[in-house]
Amino acid sequence: MPTEDPKLDQLKRLLGENDDLRKAATLLFWDQRVMMPPGGAEARADALATVSRLTHERFVDDELGNLLEDLKGLEETLDYESDDASLIRVTRRDFDKAVRVPPELTGEMRRASALASADWGLAKQNADYPSMLPHMEKHLELKHRYVACFDTPDETYDVLLDDYEPGMKTSDVRAIFDTLKEELLPLIQEISEAGDVDDSFLTGEFDPGAQQAFSLEIVRRFGFTDEEWRLDTTAHPFMTTPGHGDVRLTTNYRPHDTTSLFASMHEFGHGVYEWGVAPELSRGPLGSGVSLGVHESQSRTWENLIGRSRPFWRYFYPRLQEHFPQFGSVDEEAFYRAVNKVHPSLIRIDADEVTYNMHIILRFELEQELIEGRVDLRDLPEAWDARMDEYLGIDVPSAREGVLQDMHWSSGSMGYFPTYALGNVMSVQIWERLKEDVDVDEQMERGEFGEIREWLRSRLYVLGRKFEPQETIERVTGSRIDPGPYVRYLREKLAPQPA
Amino acid sequence: MPTEDPKLDQLKRLLGENDDLRKAATLLFWDQRVMMPPGGAEARADALATVSRLTHERFVDDELGNLLEDLKGLEETLDYESDDASLIRVTRRDFDKAVRVPPELTGEMRRASALASADWGLAKQNADYPSMLPHMEKHLELKHRYVACFDTPDETYDVLLDDYEPGMKTSDVRAIFDTLKEELLPLIQEISEAGDVDDSFLTGEFDPGAQQAFSLEIVRRFGFTDEEWRLDTTAHPFMTTPGHGDVRLTTNYRPHDTTSLFASMHEFGHGVYEWGVAPELSRGPLGSGVSLGVHESQSRTWENLIGRSRPFWRYFYPRLQEHFPQFGSVDEEAFYRAVNKVHPSLIRIDADEVTYNMHIILRFELEQELIEGRVDLRDLPEAWDARMDEYLGIDVPSAREGVLQDMHWSSGSMGYFPTYALGNVMSVQIWERLKEDVDVDEQMERGEFGEIREWLRSRLYVLGRKFEPQETIERVTGSRIDPGPYVRYLREKLAPQPA
Repeated sequence: MPTEDPKLDQLKRLLGENDDLRKAATLLFWDQRVMMPPGGAEARADALATVSRLTHERFVDDELGNLLEDLKGLEETLDYESDDASLIRVTRRDFDKAVRVPPELTGEMRRASALASADWGLAKQNADYPSMLPHMEKHLELKHRYVACFDTPDETYDVLLDDYEPGMKTSDVRAIFDTLKEELLPLIQEISEAGDVDDSFLTGEFDPGAQQAFSLEIVRRFGFTDEEWRLDTTAHPFMTTPGHGDVRLTTNYRPHDTTSLFASMHEFGHGVYEWGVAPELSRGPLGSGVSLGVHESQSRTWENLIGRSRPFWRYFYPRLQEHFPQFGSVDEEAFYRAVNKVHPSLIRIDADEVTYNMHIILRFELEQELIEGRVDLRDLPEAWDARMDEYLGIDVPSAREGVLQDMHWSSGSMGYFPTYALGNVMSVQIWERLKEDVDVDEQMERGEFGEIREWLRSRLYVLGRKFEPQETIERVTGSRIDPGPYVRYLREKLAPQPA
Repeated sequence: MPTEDPKLDQLKRLLGENDDLRKAATLLFWDQRVMMPPGGAEARADALATVSRLTHERFVDDELGNLLEDLKGLEETLDYESDDASLIRVTRRDFDKAVRVPPELTGEMRRASALASADWGLAKQNADYPSMLPHMEKHLELKHRYVACFDTPDETYDVLLDDYEPGMKTSDVRAIFDTLKEELLPLIQEISEAGDVDDSFLTGEFDPGAQQAFSLEIVRRFGFTDEEWRLDTTAHPFMTTPGHGDVRLTTNYRPHDTTSLFASMHEFGHGVYEWGVAPELSRGPLGSGVSLGVHESQSRTWENLIGRSRPFWRYFYPRLQEHFPQFGSVDEEAFYRAVNKVHPSLIRIDADEVTYNMHIILRFELEQELIEGRVDLRDLPEAWDARMDEYLGIDVPSAREGVLQDMHWSSGSMGYFPTYALGNVMSVQIWERLKEDVDVDEQMERGEFGEIREWLRSRLYVLGRKFEPQETIERVTGSRIDPGPYVRYLREKLAPQPA
């Protein structure tokens, strides 16, 4: 759709082409994880590197910089909320950040990440932190060089955080996390004192075929269609969209539990956010979710606020019993309590809704201590283990279940983790606002999710990257990120009931 | 691997990156046909168009032209047969052709092809040639503009042919096809007079799952491994390689016949050719099969020379009977004769080994008549039907089974068809040479294909695009393309035996 300004048209053409390249890279990545025979690894690494590098080179080219300069006048005449003004504003922000980083450094970071990621699997398996140490030292050195590309921030960590949660400051996150800590540590204590919930029936033999069929049944009721979605299996589940109207979920059916059901709902939440971005934004830099935190708020909405709720299981529990006859002797309330069991544990991705946040806070704190040199990389495992003991009262048997459990640090990602807990916080803020307009319990009890999805789509998903994350949340909920609703939700749902 | 010449290194880097982009486009295409949900069509068309256009723009850039100019001196010092000399020589040929065509014309041809291809399915279904006529007229006009980009050829058709079978002249093909016509028309007559072969048991109910299992069993014995290959289903089977060590076959299981077995072997033949290209050529313009004709020679080798041979079925017939118990009452010889039945029919892709060539000759002749204006596009269906009567003695009920049966013309491909019959001719030339070194019958009877595959790999596949097609055939067989062995093979195998 040509506008009347040739410079703006040129900007859109250029950004559209870059988005086409980004989608090609997305598909190369999805296929690598889901479809590619192992023999294709080397050629795929070359193809991904070239497509990513060309996309970056085209983006930081003077042509784009000059266009943005030329468009300043036009931008001032446009309505701030318009798609065109947002496109220019967001592109300028992305461009100003991108041009500060020399291509050599970008390349070095990418290589370091690829090399270290390749070694992480074996290091984790062998609980061999020392073998990863040289990679981690390299990453940390590169992070310091990266930070130095930007104006001196209030806190060094601000620069890392901004890549994942644009506009957010370390001090903002710290304030939110301090509240979480203050509220959740006593809650965890109370729950622990109330005694154990029986969840023994959640482990056993669960036919992967039945898991797949039931996962599909759930996400189809959520809005998954064969016309626009896929659900495949892979080792480490993720969601990606190689094009508008082409949403790809992946999941992993473990034969001895049914966690895949929640993983599928989680990935659906990521997928439906991308699915709902306004089509007219879809071929360009505004055409995706606005930040990792807001993305996680939606995966958590569909996994936890919906998928671990009583009304959801009111509808789906009889269906679950059909797929898995072993639940015939388990009553609905016992199942509900089991899938919501709060219990300190070692592994972040398996953690419950309450303790999950402590896993994140631990990582957020250690990341700051690392980048500020207050913890030495050589002492990281000990620092990790001590913090696990402090926050969750558990012993870490080895680096496999400790500092090496996640790929993030090994692949050079720092500043990413806090977005998970921010997502939890935002999910409830948005959900509370949604409940003012939609009787969610009544809907879910009937297995209906259309009104919920449509509310989220039309208020949040449709915006894509038009506004900054905090601004987006404010537009949807009326207030900035606020942990209040989240801690109230956790306490109401999960605190022990007085006898 | 850097050489000692910086210009040559630069050439290799540039061509390597272009090959990465080509592989990205290959994957975008494969996924579109095999995996993509329909909703992704528009975004995929954009991504494919951008990646293809950027690849082309980078290829015709002055940078490459200057490099080729600068490398002339080096090229003269290099051994003609070396990889480096071949790289420069083949790239120069590709470049000289590519720069002659203005980007606007390339773009117009691509658009016309996309638009017409989209309409072809419905036009074929409705046997509605008039609705395709405007597309065909556009294609023909574009072809004339395309031909005009090149030096005046001996025959206009030479320019079209050269895109699919580099170095081949229309007169060469005509000479080969004249021999085929002369030999095959009487052979078809003889066979027809000898009476009908019973192949009624080849139609019935054939479980697609069993077809898939048996297809896989066959191609695994041929050399398919999960490490480097995939076999998926799609509407119109094809083979593609999004990377070295990543060969993707597709096939289509029709529930009422077992043609998928031959289709799978056919695609394996294409796949194993790409699979066998020397790894050191794989990231660049030499890293694929040399021409459509030579490619087809290999698909036909594995489909017909192997897959329709007596020794092949000596080994596989009992296995077939296990997968499809309905063959329990059919003896091996009767089955062998049925899958080799020669009988004039309407549809090229279902034709037997003998009449197939007449389908091609018909198209080769009509293409020349069209491009030279001797047949008007409006009269094409009549010309088609008349030629079908002349060569195969059959009536064409409608354009669905006639001029619209293939997508090639509707999508703007002219000059492509003859490569199919050239492939048949070359397949037997190569096979005869192979038989001097390998006791193929003894191998196949034992279900062993390693020696055959290895001979073909080390003599032919490994060469990639280093030499022109005719030159490649000469290096492998000792002679230029020659229809003699092929017609002898057909007569020996398929002529009626004197009683």
